[in-house]
Amino acid sequence: MRGAVLHGARDVRFEKLDAPRIKEPTDAILRLSASCICGSDLWPYRGIQPTTAPRAMGHEYCGIVEEVGRGVTSVRPGQFVIGSFFASDNTCPHCKAGYQTSCEHSQPVGGAQAPMLRVPLADGTLVATREVPSAELIPSMLAASDVLGTGWFAADAANVKPGTTVVVVGDGAVGLLGVLAAKQLGAERIIVMSRHEPRQKLAREFGATDIVTEREDEGIARIQELTKGIGADAVLECVGTSESMTQAIGCARPGGYVSYVGVPHGVKLDAQKLFFTHVHLHGGPAPVRRYLPRLIELVEKGSIEPGKVFDLTLPLDKVAEGYRAMDERRAIKTLLRV
Amino acid sequence: MRGAVLHGARDVRFEKLDAPRIKEPTDAILRLSASCICGSDLWPYRGIQPTTAPRAMGHEYCGIVEEVGRGVTSVRPGQFVIGSFFASDNTCPHCKAGYQTSCEHSQPVGGAQAPMLRVPLADGTLVATREVPSAELIPSMLAASDVLGTGWFAADAANVKPGTTVVVVGDGAVGLLGVLAAKQLGAERIIVMSRHEPRQKLAREFGATDIVTEREDEGIARIQELTKGIGADAVLECVGTSESMTQAIGCARPGGYVSYVGVPHGVKLDAQKLFFTHVHLHGGPAPVRRYLPRLIELVEKGSIEPGKVFDLTLPLDKVAEGYRAMDERRAIKTLLRV
Repeated sequence: MRGAVLHGARDVRFEKLDAPRIKEPTDAILRLSASCICGSDLWPYRGIQPTTAPRAMGHEYCGIVEEVGRGVTSVRPGQFVIGSFFASDNTCPHCKAGYQTSCEHSQPVGGAQAPMLRVPLADGTLVATREVPSAELIPSMLAASDVLGTGWFAADAANVKPGTTVVVVGDGAVGLLGVLAAKQLGAERIIVMSRHEPRQKLAREFGATDIVTEREDEGIARIQELTKGIGADAVLECVGTSESMTQAIGCARPGGYVSYVGVPHGVKLDAQKLFFTHVHLHGGPAPVRRYLPRLIELVEKGSIEPGKVFDLTLPLDKVAEGYRAMDERRAIKTLLRV
Repeated sequence: MRGAVLHGARDVRFEKLDAPRIKEPTDAILRLSASCICGSDLWPYRGIQPTTAPRAMGHEYCGIVEEVGRGVTSVRPGQFVIGSFFASDNTCPHCKAGYQTSCEHSQPVGGAQAPMLRVPLADGTLVATREVPSAELIPSMLAASDVLGTGWFAADAANVKPGTTVVVVGDGAVGLLGVLAAKQLGAERIIVMSRHEPRQKLAREFGATDIVTEREDEGIARIQELTKGIGADAVLECVGTSESMTQAIGCARPGGYVSYVGVPHGVKLDAQKLFFTHVHLHGGPAPVRRYLPRLIELVEKGSIEPGKVFDLTLPLDKVAEGYRAMDERRAIKTLLRV
């Protein structure tokens, strides 16, 4: 088979790879229905995170179980399944507390920009749908694997509840699905900080009530104005830079909640400044597994359509163009037809 | 009258001060029943926080209302009252949300190491007891003004609930009353990090179940051992240094809660490291006013005796010795007889 391999900054190649095989009795092999490119893939793609050896890319996936190891009991060949970017046993104390991405036995899942994928700890990691979904549901099912689950965690970690005033910092796919999640969780007002017209439009479709185009201090001042000088109850930081974090904290009311779900790059927080803001801070690699059953159900019922974040669809062999389009912000998120 | 004035590092003088007078119609003047020295007073005393001009010290107080401004309606002369170190209107959105130390009109209260004190925003700030308490209750009432309220906020901000496993970092008066608060909030296990025998003893009286004398990485390893490799549900950081913050975060389980209630001095948090710990972080200047009615009730009923943290009592004119004793850790906390 052939899949995407990153060799260095801006050097993604579609090349021959060994087909995955069962290595552990707890593994499953999936035949993927679709794959995609993550905003976090852009960190190594742009060279901000160095690539020291060629690396098979991709960690978002859904598809049909092809084969399972002899220890797997909860999924079987022929089922359609979705999993998260971290395999987890779903039985350890951290998993039971809902932090599957901190599972005692967690393993990263990699190489999903390919036709076939090995998923470790299949019983704990994979969730099967009731039936094989129709083609039009595939993008939304795929979104549940990471970007929707991450946006959902952002909203949940920021304590979004009925009536909440929410600010979303970041108009990438995660931020946009943070909007969708906030809407589902009952937010009354959802303010999105965005300067990009197509993203603003999608944000509004997902439930945004206000768009703020100003940034940094001006952006904070605008949020204060919109919230009558109080600040937002909940702020979802969906970027991972110092600027976005400072902006997020500055938009929250005293005692408000700031979540952060993008891996922070070079962000140092001055604890004394943070102290006097009185904000709650919570984030980390999203425990998507916690939310998967609920997200799958919402997609199956047609209550949400997170697949709309894919505004570019390419065949898998054009994966390099998919990276370029996202890097240049021509695409919000690229779906790869396998 | 005479009171404590800080002139520079380790230079506290008991000297003549103008007696406070009503300046605003919302002010009250109190005749103090007792005063004390706060751990946070040691930052400027030690010169870590510079003193640029002589400053009347003290911000913990309880006493009898002597006089009120014409706008004050909720307290009257003759009542025994307790307030917090920040005056607050208790009506603005931040106060209503329980963050009175972020009140839109907050003002610091200062000069309480003296016989008389002016308290601004008296209606919002002061809470009257049902009757004038007996002499033996005064230390516990005084503790409610700051150190107990701060320890209580530490436990609340760390989400301490029935059954929680708690770690307290810091065996100062705030940490010790964090133990008392955690016990009251139903914690099952309370582990205190302390190397000082008298403080360990008081911690046990307040409800500590375990004492850990190791620090930094060894301390974290010991907590992991005591919690079967899981980490603590709640960690109360009651110091405010880089070492204590790092230790606190390292003791928490993934998804656990870390509160911090001492003003952080020179603490920079690496957001990426914090991200992968999955902890919740919340703190700030304790909104003691939120808890005062409950704390006063607990003291009145004799359910708690937070006044035990005062292990040195001096007449007010010996205030400089009170500072020295705390600076040299000969005393946990000094009560000043007014």
